[in-house]
Amino acid sequence: MAGARITPRAQDYAQWYQDVVREGGLAEAAEVVRGCMVIKPHGYAVWEKMQADLDRRFKETGHQNAYFPLLIPLSVLAKEAQHVEGFAMECAVVTHSGLKAHDGKISVKNELEEPYVVRPTSETIIGHFFKKWIDSYRDLPMLLNQWANVMRWELRTRLFLRTGEFLWQEGHTAHATHAEAQEEVARMLDVYRDFAHEVMALPVIQGVKTENERFAGAVETRCIEALMQDGKALQAGTSHDLGQNFGKAFDVTFQNQQGAREHVWQTSWGVSTRLVGAVVMAHSDDDGLVLPPRLAPIHVVFVPIWKSDAEKAQVCEAAHKLAKELREDGLGVKVDDRDNLRPGDKYYEWERKGVPLRIELGPRDLAAGTVMAKRRIAPLDANGKAVKETLSMQDLGVAVGRILDEFQRFLYERALAFREANTVVVDTWDEFVAVFKGEGSKFVHAHWDGTGATEKAIKEATKATIRCLPYDGQGPALEPGRCIKTGAPSARRVLFAKNY
Amino acid sequence: MAGARITPRAQDYAQWYQDVVREGGLAEAAEVVRGCMVIKPHGYAVWEKMQADLDRRFKETGHQNAYFPLLIPLSVLAKEAQHVEGFAMECAVVTHSGLKAHDGKISVKNELEEPYVVRPTSETIIGHFFKKWIDSYRDLPMLLNQWANVMRWELRTRLFLRTGEFLWQEGHTAHATHAEAQEEVARMLDVYRDFAHEVMALPVIQGVKTENERFAGAVETRCIEALMQDGKALQAGTSHDLGQNFGKAFDVTFQNQQGAREHVWQTSWGVSTRLVGAVVMAHSDDDGLVLPPRLAPIHVVFVPIWKSDAEKAQVCEAAHKLAKELREDGLGVKVDDRDNLRPGDKYYEWERKGVPLRIELGPRDLAAGTVMAKRRIAPLDANGKAVKETLSMQDLGVAVGRILDEFQRFLYERALAFREANTVVVDTWDEFVAVFKGEGSKFVHAHWDGTGATEKAIKEATKATIRCLPYDGQGPALEPGRCIKTGAPSARRVLFAKNY
Repeated sequence: MAGARITPRAQDYAQWYQDVVREGGLAEAAEVVRGCMVIKPHGYAVWEKMQADLDRRFKETGHQNAYFPLLIPLSVLAKEAQHVEGFAMECAVVTHSGLKAHDGKISVKNELEEPYVVRPTSETIIGHFFKKWIDSYRDLPMLLNQWANVMRWELRTRLFLRTGEFLWQEGHTAHATHAEAQEEVARMLDVYRDFAHEVMALPVIQGVKTENERFAGAVETRCIEALMQDGKALQAGTSHDLGQNFGKAFDVTFQNQQGAREHVWQTSWGVSTRLVGAVVMAHSDDDGLVLPPRLAPIHVVFVPIWKSDAEKAQVCEAAHKLAKELREDGLGVKVDDRDNLRPGDKYYEWERKGVPLRIELGPRDLAAGTVMAKRRIAPLDANGKAVKETLSMQDLGVAVGRILDEFQRFLYERALAFREANTVVVDTWDEFVAVFKGEGSKFVHAHWDGTGATEKAIKEATKATIRCLPYDGQGPALEPGRCIKTGAPSARRVLFAKNY
Repeated sequence: MAGARITPRAQDYAQWYQDVVREGGLAEAAEVVRGCMVIKPHGYAVWEKMQADLDRRFKETGHQNAYFPLLIPLSVLAKEAQHVEGFAMECAVVTHSGLKAHDGKISVKNELEEPYVVRPTSETIIGHFFKKWIDSYRDLPMLLNQWANVMRWELRTRLFLRTGEFLWQEGHTAHATHAEAQEEVARMLDVYRDFAHEVMALPVIQGVKTENERFAGAVETRCIEALMQDGKALQAGTSHDLGQNFGKAFDVTFQNQQGAREHVWQTSWGVSTRLVGAVVMAHSDDDGLVLPPRLAPIHVVFVPIWKSDAEKAQVCEAAHKLAKELREDGLGVKVDDRDNLRPGDKYYEWERKGVPLRIELGPRDLAAGTVMAKRRIAPLDANGKAVKETLSMQDLGVAVGRILDEFQRFLYERALAFREANTVVVDTWDEFVAVFKGEGSKFVHAHWDGTGATEKAIKEATKATIRCLPYDGQGPALEPGRCIKTGAPSARRVLFAKNY
């Protein structure tokens, strides 16, 4: 029953990630559908936890969910020129309806008058409806969100991080003024940051993207960036100021309080199943998946330990009783009373599934009214052995709640310490090149002359990209200097890293 | 601000339905996407309530959610012959990736080696993965569910009831024996019935479909059928016994406890956004949408009533305070304190949105410590005027909870009484033809000779179809007789109606 080996991070980080996802039962490549994946029950349960928490935050900030069509007519997609150019190569296109059989082969039947694109994102189709729905300043702000699947066929894919189809939410809002839209962009990026910190236990840096990295059709893109264990950055969420670009492309106007007609100001913002990959990469270890309690489908697994059938009956009964109590506290609890596995095999399996807390319960524990608890990542004792904690069966829920809170905080603090240890300020090109040599990467704050040409030259030379211009206070103090590559004057340092 | 007129049911039932959906803010036709719709926030919120309740029921019966690819390779879809034949004409087909611009026009770029079908349902792609995941009896039963969008392009569409794209859940399970699979089919149909009765306030009849109406690839299809206000039936959910058809097509086998390999037995079952249409059609009236409280996004709307600014401040403060208390009880509550509308306009708007309970609150009520409550459908007094109830502000939550429970029950009982009044047992062809003359329709229990040919002949003559062979006890007693059309012997009566 033992799973396949998990490749150690130090040996092959990319393979380690694949192994953790596979052994954690999170997802697998669809294979027969190019670049797509199947999200397996354990992985989908993590996504559901993310959805529930984010959905609550969106509603608390005044947004309502709606659902727009999957298919976008080519002519609608093409209305915003930069947008269609940005997504053109990644589009899956529906050209036919119906199938016919002939000579034992199945083929397509009716060609459509106009092809449809499977949505890569929904600004355009939503623009079409905003025009129908918005007429007066009283209709604004319009604050919508959609939970949906989208498709972007890309050449190189990786489970959760970059797949042909993925699940996401996309917020789409329309406002009467640019200032209001800008506030919305910042507000939703704060929602993403808070979610990353509080739920994913993942510290992120907020900032503004360069023009090269901007969303196709936006006037500004903001993002949250997280550091993975290999020193590479992962963009975890984006929030776009669309200005009046889509408003003008779709002629979405409103009558203002003075009776004049103006184009609306729009925003869009999204996070996706990529966040599941971010959680995996940020917290897991060579023993497999590690999940923060607030995203764990199973918080606690009981492993009863017995020798005789009589013992089995007793310890299993006690485990099920305790499990029931914990479930009443809202926890996800599993009792692993399978006959055909030894306790060690069970430990191994649940570790790989990222269960934050294991509780062992044998006849001696039962007699003493206690259980043995082991955190998924436990401190080591003087002999280098993982510490187990003895907990009283009485008020077990309180102790478990405390441990899960501590474990959630521990993961955040560990990730933050890792990020701090892997963030540097660099002022010379030689030093910069050294950081990114081979597979090397860190968060690097460095001066840049502000041109797209230099940004590209740096990427070609080192594979490092500008992740963002961090908000003030989310990096070293804003001060002028000279570009590490060209020596030209620079107003401030920006954040570089290789990225997923 | 008054909405457009709602066509009375008696005048044009189909137009009435469209008007109720539009004025209720539930959905609208996408127009630019053939046969598809936009689900607007109020409609989507109803669907979210359905999802939350059903998802809990699925999990309580041991199912886990997962997510499979949107696109199905043609060769995978074609593996089960009956299945591909059943869905062939409705498929949307992706044949290209990428777009290119030339001469100012955008067109498709790269032809795919193999076309993909946008899933019309997922038995085939899931069959592909069941083969990879199932190896031993220990892997069974495999109990999965997916929340997803699907596409079936049909010629005649109607908001919610039949649309090119719709949202649904599809359960997919694999079992070691046929008996277990059959139990699952019945169990999930019971889940659907309980949901319809308890949440949708919609009485349904459970039964078995005829071979003609069976799901493509199933050995048996069971369904729940509801009666709409025009006497037509609406199929509200289906549960399929797939036998070993897909197991054999995809070669999904398991090693049984004796060490031999067998093909798995599968089921699938689903309900969709069509249920939103069913709720609208079953309960709404000529004043617009009526929603059962358990599906209402807004349970209570407060309409404060004032003349002076001083009065406004007082009544609005009281309304917001009461609303806050009701929200703490888990209710959806709106306070309509808009300046630019008169109370009558507000009543009208919230009635059309189907809010179950309106609470009016003026200065005199405030002084008396009471509010005036009016149910969306209220009993009439001796003068034919809708009764309003005086409720104390003290413990308002208790009174509101009681009224909402009563209103939920009232809608169920009203729908049940309507169904009983519109269900007949018919034993002659003349009588049968009379029921279905013109636009006429009812639930008709009648004898049928069991042949597909007669079923088709009856449909051609009357437009009535066999909705199901009701479970024993869900119709008149099972007794033999003679087919109303051919006079041939019949073992039992079956349920006929025109249908959506």
